[in-house]
Amino acid sequence: MIRIGVIGFGYWGPNIVRNFNAVDNAAVVAICDKNKEVLNKLSGSNPGVTLTTDVNEIINSGYIDLVAVVTPVSTHYDIAKKVLEQGKNVFIEKPFTSTSTQAVELIDLAETKKCKIMVDHTFIFTGAVRKIKQLINRGDMGSVYYYDSVRVNLGLFQHDVNVVWDLAPHDFSIMSYLIDEVPVAVSAWGQSHVSSLEDIAYINVHFNTSTVAHFSVNWLSPVKVRTTLIGGEKRMLVWNDLNADEKIKIYDKGVEVNGKQGIYDLLVSYRSGDMWAPKIEQNEALFMECNHFIDCINYDKPVINDGTKGLEVVRMLEACDKSMKNEGRPVEIDYALFQNSNLLDKGNTDLI
Amino acid sequence: MIRIGVIGFGYWGPNIVRNFNAVDNAAVVAICDKNKEVLNKLSGSNPGVTLTTDVNEIINSGYIDLVAVVTPVSTHYDIAKKVLEQGKNVFIEKPFTSTSTQAVELIDLAETKKCKIMVDHTFIFTGAVRKIKQLINRGDMGSVYYYDSVRVNLGLFQHDVNVVWDLAPHDFSIMSYLIDEVPVAVSAWGQSHVSSLEDIAYINVHFNTSTVAHFSVNWLSPVKVRTTLIGGEKRMLVWNDLNADEKIKIYDKGVEVNGKQGIYDLLVSYRSGDMWAPKIEQNEALFMECNHFIDCINYDKPVINDGTKGLEVVRMLEACDKSMKNEGRPVEIDYALFQNSNLLDKGNTDLI
Amino acid sequence: MIRIGVIGFGYWGPNIVRNFNAVDNAAVVAICDKNKEVLNKLSGSNPGVTLTTDVNEIINSGYIDLVAVVTPVSTHYDIAKKVLEQGKNVFIEKPFTSTSTQAVELIDLAETKKCKIMVDHTFIFTGAVRKIKQLINRGDMGSVYYYDSVRVNLGLFQHDVNVVWDLAPHDFSIMSYLIDEVPVAVSAWGQSHVSSLEDIAYINVHFNTSTVAHFSVNWLSPVKVRTTLIGGEKRMLVWNDLNADEKIKIYDKGVEVNGKQGIYDLLVSYRSGDMWAPKIEQNEALFMECNHFIDCINYDKPVINDGTKGLEVVRMLEACDKSMKNEGRPVEIDYALFQNSNLLDKGNTDLI
Amino acid sequence: MIRIGVIGFGYWGPNIVRNFNAVDNAAVVAICDKNKEVLNKLSGSNPGVTLTTDVNEIINSGYIDLVAVVTPVSTHYDIAKKVLEQGKNVFIEKPFTSTSTQAVELIDLAETKKCKIMVDHTFIFTGAVRKIKQLINRGDMGSVYYYDSVRVNLGLFQHDVNVVWDLAPHDFSIMSYLIDEVPVAVSAWGQSHVSSLEDIAYINVHFNTSTVAHFSVNWLSPVKVRTTLIGGEKRMLVWNDLNADEKIKIYDKGVEVNGKQGIYDLLVSYRSGDMWAPKIEQNEALFMECNHFIDCINYDKPVINDGTKGLEVVRMLEACDKSMKNEGRPVEIDYALFQNSNLLDKGNTDLI
Repeated sequence: MIRIGVIGFGYWGPNIVRNFNAVDNAAVVAICDKNKEVLNKLSGSNPGVTLTTDVNEIINSGYIDLVAVVTPVSTHYDIAKKVLEQGKNVFIEKPFTSTSTQAVELIDLAETKKCKIMVDHTFIFTGAVRKIKQLINRGDMGSVYYYDSVRVNLGLFQHDVNVVWDLAPHDFSIMSYLIDEVPVAVSAWGQSHVSSLEDIAYINVHFNTSTVAHFSVNWLSPVKVRTTLIGGEKRMLVWNDLNADEKIKIYDKGVEVNGKQGIYDLLVSYRSGDMWAPKIEQNEALFMECNHFIDCINYDKPVINDGTKGLEVVRMLEACDKSMKNEGRPVEIDYALFQNSNLLDKGNTDLI
Repeated sequence: MIRIGVIGFGYWGPNIVRNFNAVDNAAVVAICDKNKEVLNKLSGSNPGVTLTTDVNEIINSGYIDLVAVVTPVSTHYDIAKKVLEQGKNVFIEKPFTSTSTQAVELIDLAETKKCKIMVDHTFIFTGAVRKIKQLINRGDMGSVYYYDSVRVNLGLFQHDVNVVWDLAPHDFSIMSYLIDEVPVAVSAWGQSHVSSLEDIAYINVHFNTSTVAHFSVNWLSPVKVRTTLIGGEKRMLVWNDLNADEKIKIYDKGVEVNGKQGIYDLLVSYRSGDMWAPKIEQNEALFMECNHFIDCINYDKPVINDGTKGLEVVRMLEACDKSMKNEGRPVEIDYALFQNSNLLDKGNTDLI
Repeated sequence: MIRIGVIGFGYWGPNIVRNFNAVDNAAVVAICDKNKEVLNKLSGSNPGVTLTTDVNEIINSGYIDLVAVVTPVSTHYDIAKKVLEQGKNVFIEKPFTSTSTQAVELIDLAETKKCKIMVDHTFIFTGAVRKIKQLINRGDMGSVYYYDSVRVNLGLFQHDVNVVWDLAPHDFSIMSYLIDEVPVAVSAWGQSHVSSLEDIAYINVHFNTSTVAHFSVNWLSPVKVRTTLIGGEKRMLVWNDLNADEKIKIYDKGVEVNGKQGIYDLLVSYRSGDMWAPKIEQNEALFMECNHFIDCINYDKPVINDGTKGLEVVRMLEACDKSMKNEGRPVEIDYALFQNSNLLDKGNTDLI
Repeated sequence: MIRIGVIGFGYWGPNIVRNFNAVDNAAVVAICDKNKEVLNKLSGSNPGVTLTTDVNEIINSGYIDLVAVVTPVSTHYDIAKKVLEQGKNVFIEKPFTSTSTQAVELIDLAETKKCKIMVDHTFIFTGAVRKIKQLINRGDMGSVYYYDSVRVNLGLFQHDVNVVWDLAPHDFSIMSYLIDEVPVAVSAWGQSHVSSLEDIAYINVHFNTSTVAHFSVNWLSPVKVRTTLIGGEKRMLVWNDLNADEKIKIYDKGVEVNGKQGIYDLLVSYRSGDMWAPKIEQNEALFMECNHFIDCINYDKPVINDGTKGLEVVRMLEACDKSMKNEGRPVEIDYALFQNSNLLDKGNTDLI
């Protein structure tokens, strides 16, 4: 039995509790929130669960094996560091930390303490992303030409981070899961209108190949959009996450150049065939993720969305901020950061 | 009666002929195409119209008042120059010319010859764009926060220009018509996959204010999208040009910051009211445009989409190309180009 | 404080419990289900709530004021009769009873015992239906020409009733709430394919005027549809209950006949103006309904969806069954049924 | 070369002319319309084509092989009779005639005169209907459970016929083409609101099996809908004719009853798999139809949509009218009508 303490019971906390409780041989035994009213509401329906406003009661408990940190980003590093120092495993909300330096330190600490970190990149556990991964892996798409995501809605939910840190972690983690290439640079261009934080931004991800990734994130859109186009050599797909029944549509469409006869005679042919919407598994992604973490802890397996994956995303977000301060000029991704880390010493070459 | 000669009878030519013929006191009297078969097909149903493969027959005709140039971009400058030298008015396909230098020369020549130029930016004559202009002008939107256009489809129609020169002229001309601000820089980032020409590109338009414009253009999309989001201080709208019945949806939605109490307590309130889809005029835009040109010629009025508007777009396209060659770094819009032109001498201050 | 006992904790039961508990001065104090496992799951998180497999424990309890009957239709009459005999108020799932004779008996019994009945016609408490009611009442639609509902999906959820008894109660109760006219006949035509119960049916509701109502219900549709068209003299609307953001669209469209000059010269003019999607209240309908019932009990107010409304729907369903057995011939609605009931004695003239 | 005369050049006439002219070895040589202005507009662009206001000039011409009758229904019989008497082939708008008696007479006359009749049921030549036919024929759907069509819009285009005669001929002809069963009865229920003609109607088509067909036709809908659901034993499909790219969606969905254990234990299982939108041929249906008729004339082949098919539809429309006058009671389809016709004598058993 893995005993879990949850820190933070705001918007997302209840989902974390419900899903960890649904996993076999796991149970939430303590919940911490600084808001007493929240705890009072919980008291009736959660007999036997420790409810506290004191973070340390969870961190220092000798009874708890795993702590879920579901608090604002700015608090992640401090809490997670203490948790790891106590030799406990950490499940932590995205984005992992406020800086990549913090992320590296936590990863190293976890190594030393033989603890595991999971960063909550829930989307890679969805049926939709899993299906796309499968399509790409078995060659149905051919080589990927572009990954183009629009993730916009009305809502300034975050008070301490801009729209890039709020919405783009989803895109960076999904892209990293799907595309087997290492980004070499990122450019981002944003603007703030309502507060001092950017509320609209456009992000380009540069690779050494002709692969293109682009994310549009926006807190000031009148309509909610969650649509990703992925263009491949052989097929193209549209993933509309708001479409309940046809989340993924795969198009047997493509372009071929069959030759060239002088400057005006590029011989282009188009292929336009059937469209196909595969059935998507309906399992709740957060349950799959919680289950994976408990499994990794019990059998000492590697975590798919571990600290290095969280670090990778944080490094991208830092690069976005730097680029936005510089009017969208591209920022190279610096891999030197890791030279003093024991991460690379161990030949962890699949680091982004 | 304005007598019109049309050069080029490919995809768009027949529409030009049909619409100029529908204008009162205007008639197409000659059509030129290098393809004899095209002319043969026309011969039966166009009695009295001169059909020729020789461009000069139209350019030099003493009978023709206005020449419509509906040929590939690379040929625009040469043909238009000869036409203007003959003292004839010119209607010319977008984009105006291959370089801004050519555009300036043609504008100056037209000035000298007392001729008029219209560049075919058809979209600004559509009911949809006219309605949006009206909404912005009468203050319904409040100040514009962003203009975000997605214009993608499967199709590599152009053999001599990239996707930016093919699709972005629409966005540049519409944006210029709707937004009363001068762009100071442009950045563009593109990639080619099928030929040596960029087939996907993302464009940022920088202003001196917090206004943001962004265009996504793509020849490799499995689905056709023609959607523009415009966010304003008071209202927001979605223009979906592929929606026959509800092209424009206006949302009574917005965000307000009502105060701030410490770092985590930004007091944000959201307004979410009714949606409204105004009736859009159904007149064919190209007819409205042709009619406007004939009217301007007859009564010596200024043309809305004249050579300077065409030049503005070409200058943006050039900046995009320069930026794309430089990995998306922003390129300032150089207004010095015009210093030797007699355009600015005359205090044409509305030239952006 | 109104103390509530809930009988039946299957698919809908948990929603009933949650919403009655959310009402001020109301609390669910007992839950009955014949399935012990269901009760075991409830035991941990519902301290103080009586859990039982014995219906009579709830019916006979001296502590309970109101019983919610959330069981299959065939059991409604027996349970509700015993509940009323004990002088308790009854909240009962739709459809009210299996026969209109049963319904009349229960209504009479409730009168005698001074108890209240609410039949769970949830839809009339939704923001969408309330908005449509408002539009019709204030004359925005003009007189109603037709009410046309399509309610189809894949699913044979009911084992003891056909598709008409499963889906059409929604339409009959909504129609009755919206349209201020008395149906005079009903015709229904259905067919069974998978079991002996009809799984597809079409229903016509006849009025003495030119008003038309038609319902299409179907358990064998590959797609879920919940769309109602309402055509009025002045305006027309589409209510798509599956559209989260634009549930109701009101069209300023209409037809007028301006005169007639001979047989081929009907002078028809069409009006096609703006479309408008009003903001819909987001309150959970079931909570509004529970709250209304508690309010009616506390202050002895009339219940909107009381037994007579439930009876009205049952009578329509019976007429549908009769018509379906007779190849869709219309069946008159018989009002004589009520002659021996004390209902009509009291001049309850709004009984349809 | 088949020489064609066209009578009637209103809304549909120009399409008929264009498409017959596009067929190899066919040419429209004469056009008749009672409106002189229409003819004047045609004169310039149609050199060599006889333009006349006199129907007889076309009917009696020794030069014409085929007459297309594109006039209101009430005139079909008189014109077609004269055309056939002159030994010419007839292409005739749907619906074929105003009465089935007229239709039988024309069919007999054509037999006698060795002429061919084609009734313009264009839809059965569309790529969409052809694809559905193919799916049904090769068993992909399994046996057909139901055919459910919604064909509604705003528009009272016809002045001499009701909405059933205007819109339902499409559904009757498509249904007849797709479903290999003989209707035994029809019921229809309609109402008029704007003129004395029914502007809304619902039609049930009864078969001897459990197959169900239902059409909803409406001239007073604020939105245009052209959607048909077809449910089969093995698969189900949605045909949305207004969807340019995904006209047909085929769902691998179904219901199975696996047994029964007592009254509440019907063991139902649902199958919900992939969705598939096949590529649809884009050829213009009217061209395919014109081409088929010319081919049938040249090589004396049977016409798919011949007079008997037209008669079948007219008989259904008559039954609808009769049912509508009788409050929707079912009307049996009377096959006795044909007993004196030489049609049946020849064992034309595929006559429904």
